[in-house]
Amino acid sequence: MAMPQGVKTDPSHPIPETMKAWVLGDPGELKLTDKPVPVPKKAEVLVRIDAVAICATDLEIIYHGPPAQIEGGEPFNKNFTPGHEYMGTVVALGPGVDEYKIGERVTVEIHAGCGQCKRCRQGMYTSCHNYGKNYGDVDKGHRANGFTTDGGFCEYQVNNINTLIHVDDSMSDEEATLVVTAGTSMYGLTELGGLVAGESVVVTGPGPIGLLGVAVAKALGAQPVILTGTRDNRLEIGKKLGADHVVNIRKEDPVEAVKRINGGIGVDYVVECSAAPNAVNEACQMVNRGGKVCLAAFPGEPPTVDVAHLVRNNIYVYGIRGEGKSATHRAEAFMRQKRFDATLIHTHTFEMGDLLEAIRYAKDRVEDAIKVVVKNKHSAEGRVAAE
Amino acid sequence: MAMPQGVKTDPSHPIPETMKAWVLGDPGELKLTDKPVPVPKKAEVLVRIDAVAICATDLEIIYHGPPAQIEGGEPFNKNFTPGHEYMGTVVALGPGVDEYKIGERVTVEIHAGCGQCKRCRQGMYTSCHNYGKNYGDVDKGHRANGFTTDGGFCEYQVNNINTLIHVDDSMSDEEATLVVTAGTSMYGLTELGGLVAGESVVVTGPGPIGLLGVAVAKALGAQPVILTGTRDNRLEIGKKLGADHVVNIRKEDPVEAVKRINGGIGVDYVVECSAAPNAVNEACQMVNRGGKVCLAAFPGEPPTVDVAHLVRNNIYVYGIRGEGKSATHRAEAFMRQKRFDATLIHTHTFEMGDLLEAIRYAKDRVEDAIKVVVKNKHSAEGRVAAE
Amino acid sequence: MAMPQGVKTDPSHPIPETMKAWVLGDPGELKLTDKPVPVPKKAEVLVRIDAVAICATDLEIIYHGPPAQIEGGEPFNKNFTPGHEYMGTVVALGPGVDEYKIGERVTVEIHAGCGQCKRCRQGMYTSCHNYGKNYGDVDKGHRANGFTTDGGFCEYQVNNINTLIHVDDSMSDEEATLVVTAGTSMYGLTELGGLVAGESVVVTGPGPIGLLGVAVAKALGAQPVILTGTRDNRLEIGKKLGADHVVNIRKEDPVEAVKRINGGIGVDYVVECSAAPNAVNEACQMVNRGGKVCLAAFPGEPPTVDVAHLVRNNIYVYGIRGEGKSATHRAEAFMRQKRFDATLIHTHTFEMGDLLEAIRYAKDRVEDAIKVVVKNKHSAEGRVAAE
Amino acid sequence: MAMPQGVKTDPSHPIPETMKAWVLGDPGELKLTDKPVPVPKKAEVLVRIDAVAICATDLEIIYHGPPAQIEGGEPFNKNFTPGHEYMGTVVALGPGVDEYKIGERVTVEIHAGCGQCKRCRQGMYTSCHNYGKNYGDVDKGHRANGFTTDGGFCEYQVNNINTLIHVDDSMSDEEATLVVTAGTSMYGLTELGGLVAGESVVVTGPGPIGLLGVAVAKALGAQPVILTGTRDNRLEIGKKLGADHVVNIRKEDPVEAVKRINGGIGVDYVVECSAAPNAVNEACQMVNRGGKVCLAAFPGEPPTVDVAHLVRNNIYVYGIRGEGKSATHRAEAFMRQKRFDATLIHTHTFEMGDLLEAIRYAKDRVEDAIKVVVKNKHSAEGRVAAE
Repeated sequence: MAMPQGVKTDPSHPIPETMKAWVLGDPGELKLTDKPVPVPKKAEVLVRIDAVAICATDLEIIYHGPPAQIEGGEPFNKNFTPGHEYMGTVVALGPGVDEYKIGERVTVEIHAGCGQCKRCRQGMYTSCHNYGKNYGDVDKGHRANGFTTDGGFCEYQVNNINTLIHVDDSMSDEEATLVVTAGTSMYGLTELGGLVAGESVVVTGPGPIGLLGVAVAKALGAQPVILTGTRDNRLEIGKKLGADHVVNIRKEDPVEAVKRINGGIGVDYVVECSAAPNAVNEACQMVNRGGKVCLAAFPGEPPTVDVAHLVRNNIYVYGIRGEGKSATHRAEAFMRQKRFDATLIHTHTFEMGDLLEAIRYAKDRVEDAIKVVVKNKHSAEGRVAAE
Repeated sequence: MAMPQGVKTDPSHPIPETMKAWVLGDPGELKLTDKPVPVPKKAEVLVRIDAVAICATDLEIIYHGPPAQIEGGEPFNKNFTPGHEYMGTVVALGPGVDEYKIGERVTVEIHAGCGQCKRCRQGMYTSCHNYGKNYGDVDKGHRANGFTTDGGFCEYQVNNINTLIHVDDSMSDEEATLVVTAGTSMYGLTELGGLVAGESVVVTGPGPIGLLGVAVAKALGAQPVILTGTRDNRLEIGKKLGADHVVNIRKEDPVEAVKRINGGIGVDYVVECSAAPNAVNEACQMVNRGGKVCLAAFPGEPPTVDVAHLVRNNIYVYGIRGEGKSATHRAEAFMRQKRFDATLIHTHTFEMGDLLEAIRYAKDRVEDAIKVVVKNKHSAEGRVAAE
Repeated sequence: MAMPQGVKTDPSHPIPETMKAWVLGDPGELKLTDKPVPVPKKAEVLVRIDAVAICATDLEIIYHGPPAQIEGGEPFNKNFTPGHEYMGTVVALGPGVDEYKIGERVTVEIHAGCGQCKRCRQGMYTSCHNYGKNYGDVDKGHRANGFTTDGGFCEYQVNNINTLIHVDDSMSDEEATLVVTAGTSMYGLTELGGLVAGESVVVTGPGPIGLLGVAVAKALGAQPVILTGTRDNRLEIGKKLGADHVVNIRKEDPVEAVKRINGGIGVDYVVECSAAPNAVNEACQMVNRGGKVCLAAFPGEPPTVDVAHLVRNNIYVYGIRGEGKSATHRAEAFMRQKRFDATLIHTHTFEMGDLLEAIRYAKDRVEDAIKVVVKNKHSAEGRVAAE
Repeated sequence: MAMPQGVKTDPSHPIPETMKAWVLGDPGELKLTDKPVPVPKKAEVLVRIDAVAICATDLEIIYHGPPAQIEGGEPFNKNFTPGHEYMGTVVALGPGVDEYKIGERVTVEIHAGCGQCKRCRQGMYTSCHNYGKNYGDVDKGHRANGFTTDGGFCEYQVNNINTLIHVDDSMSDEEATLVVTAGTSMYGLTELGGLVAGESVVVTGPGPIGLLGVAVAKALGAQPVILTGTRDNRLEIGKKLGADHVVNIRKEDPVEAVKRINGGIGVDYVVECSAAPNAVNEACQMVNRGGKVCLAAFPGEPPTVDVAHLVRNNIYVYGIRGEGKSATHRAEAFMRQKRFDATLIHTHTFEMGDLLEAIRYAKDRVEDAIKVVVKNKHSAEGRVAAE
């Protein structure tokens, strides 16, 4: 493929003009098709995708459409490629890029803010006020991989360098796909203040973000770290990732359990990852006066919330979406330093061609699946020098 | 009265041994009785009470008992003196106090933290983990004037010096009683980040905290400042206090109005003071992505809250109770500098002996009462040198 | 002039192809020449320059070259147009720009960060790690108007929309050129914490940043605000801008004076704008334990600093360069709301053609010049519809 | 010993009336004498001292007098007991104390703030404005163990509960004495922002605070962590505590070395612990634009500082004294979790009776001494139940 002037590639490893890509069809439908390999512009690189983890949000998009469409009622996007938890190898550099080099392994976070709105100017790029505006007359340059711009269920994807995180050689491709999940957990703890060493943390809900929330909280020195959930096998994984205590809420009231474990007063921080109907109230009951609650999940139906309790107790509630404030870099640092083994939540691997089966495993939790990863088997001629 | 050793008084102005004090009886009952004049201990002063404003929370306490009792189910306190928005004159200094002097006019905030718990050590004394513990074996020294320790509907009261704010001579007694209300509004804006010059703020609910919230937001340079409410006369006062726009929600949907006024995107901050059932949701709809909401009020019944919206939009929600982080001092500074005229919300004055009638005015909003103040008429021999 | 596709202009008001521009020659030399009118790219607008204030830094650049060159030893830039405190009218919009409209009056701040480096991602765009990199292979898109990219001593200039601030109709062109100066003062106070109502502030040095530092500190509610300096006429202007006390350091030791005024303990914050040799030490002596010092100026020779005092007293020292964290927007809000009269520091106006004379006034403080402004007299055909 | 009413003790383990205590004589002189065992008041406990580490500041006090005296020129205190890095066992509880229990092992931090001043109200108790005021008419209740109130080179000492940290059973007495040192390092990193995972940190000076600064920075996930110093054996200990790189500044220019290691741009944070004359300048050269420098040490003579560099590069400099903002609790959490082995800096142990010899080891670095600990050999009847 002839890349435009200013784009750097490795001539000994040509990039094809087209690639295989999964695209959305009708709700619930994914089809394999051919797309042109995209071209990196200023501040962008082209990533050859090596591995992609499947996230619950991907399932939302596949079955219900991207959030912008859900919220805005726009028509279902029938040529969109989802997938946002991907990693790969840099194969081309857009004009002026020298922050990354060809052959470098990278993993990605989702959001590249517009850089111009109030929130981006504050460093809050995941709250970009130009979310989704990257087309035609309203091109503000915002990108959300796999949400508003094509994602990773394909062979190649462009990424703003703001969404890239270097991957250390000690990390497998599969582990690298989990950086963004750990980054989301890290962002939650960052928003809660971050200095949690010696402070008490509850994580509610042992899904991927919750389990890595336990891991990150422990890596930051929190104690005790308490994990609540309904499935003992998940709670056991939580223990391996650093939970000092686990509470099966089928067997014990979680608020009472937390107060029992932590001496009656409640904990300093709660990271809510369960999406349970009463989770917000329970989080606010678990936290002590002046404590903080991060909501990284939400129930399908708006719950009844005891606002009086929240006001009377000076409780702070933060909603977070994704992985802001460079938290992925902090998460990758902990992973590189082997502070926790994120691969404990990786259960299954499929080839990219078997994406539909991989999605079935993820969606139906076949064989207790937690994180299911799909990998590309690149042909020899598509591989780059550094490998 | 013979004060103990170490307590300083002005010998030419003796302090009586007993005083008139209103005390709680059965729910809804207030009786005038005699109590000993209390004695200031270390880090405390004795304040001769000159004026007290009536707050909605006082009515709660009078009709339903102090919050600790409401929450904890303890017996109704039948000898308790409520009243927390008071000001007066320092007449005695506890041992070691040199921060204030006899004859100095002061107004008070509510909370003196224990100084030992996690929150107090962080400077969050309104979230003291030893709230209400100031008796017998569990005396942690916490005091909440008029909530857990005797308040101001009497002639004299002791106050920890942490609860005192100097009152400038340019301020009337009535105005000085409003410092704590303005301080609560200021605390809300402080928790929202404080640097609101040029940023957009909505205040919902034109009660005393909301109206002074408008005033403080404007004094801090916010623009536009939008006030929503149901009563045009209150909204008019809001305009005088600095609201750039007012919205009567009986005539216009407040969320739509706010977006119309502020260019479609929502505002940066909302201070919710209405306690309306849907106020939390409306606040979260009014605020833009990444924005912050301070809840200074709460509805009687737990409302249904659109948590999904809050999470998807990275919205921060802060519950506040009272006037933390020395916000009263910042509020007093603005009032001393005449940045706004807090007396616009002072509508009626009664003598302390007419407290029951004053309460009727406050409770039933007789003659559109907003802030009703009661004043002590001290006899000549009870007055101090500095006057 | 034919602007490229995607750029919006007002066809009834054509933009010329070339313009008059002052350019650097040898050190100390400025020549009037012709340059092409620049073309706005993505996220940029073309501003017709109406007025420019002269800053001490401009004199540095004119006589010693831009800082990058001073620091890096690069050759003196002989075709560079300095001038960074300018305002004007938007005459063309780069592709995708809808944040501003043609005919809108705007003033500018200096720094457009690269948006990709660690600091820009944190919102610290004035500390961009790609400072000055906006050319050829290392084009990171950073711009510093009048420092690393052409400035305002000409007729038209492109500006990244991140450097623009809307100017209210109530503000004159001359006043609008002062927004960036007030923004620098505001940034200093922002970095000091910002919530200075009722807190004590010393500003050392009554130059433009110092005088507007007094104004902004007072607008934020600081009390007392103390200004120190050597010239009584400047100190008098400080009083008009809000200083509660002024200290002529020729007549009184400033540290002793500050302690005398503020009750012995020192103030909470110092904004040092004097560049005096001993200013850092005096600032650290003026501030109380745990206080904060913002250095907005620096002496020509590295001074001796009493580091032991700084460490023993837990003092925070912040160096600032320019006007970060959107402080210009906060400053403009205060100016629009008429909280202080910035024009008190504007003393002289010249036409752009008389720039050399204007610079002489600024440099030699002819007739006690403080801020000297030069204005363009645009011909009728160059003016835009909105006027 | 008969403790006053309200004080709780374990009757089966009587507390003697007097104890052996080392006291200051003339400068450089320490004498063993008898003192009454002090009595805990409200919010205080009596600690039976088990072990004390010797700090460089102790040597300052022994040879030059306490800082207040050095600064204030007061007469040398001839009956003062120094020693502030001590740990022990709770043997009596002052009135109302239930936060700790008799028999509990605790270690101490230095500062108990007054709780009333501006800084204490902000949670900045190590910057208490009533530092040293704990006597007679100006008793504000401030205590700085071993600085302004008697310290630990004795058998028993009272401590405000705000200065206590629980010690886990897994920690030896010697290790527990190091918590306050690690807490100082932690405070430095806390003030630098704290969220240093994946960020680059230089620690200059491999003394106790520097070495534990390396350990804490690494525990927080910093990378790389670079340690500079002059002695290879100390640098080797730094490597064991987590330094990714060490630089012997006798062999290589430290600024160049840091830039070489970290890719040319300088690091994000520097913790300066060397007290070298040019350390502040080197720190400011090592840090990148917008970076932060914590000064935990200072040279004997005020150095010349390149203030221009600091201002031009938006560098933040924080002076810290001691271990504020509950950093000791965060440090103890990391030590309890075995994130680093603080005992690597403990080199020698002596009995309390041999304090003079212990001090000689610490002062002259006999046998490469780093931390020298002295221990009490309590007689059986002085020991408490829990042991």
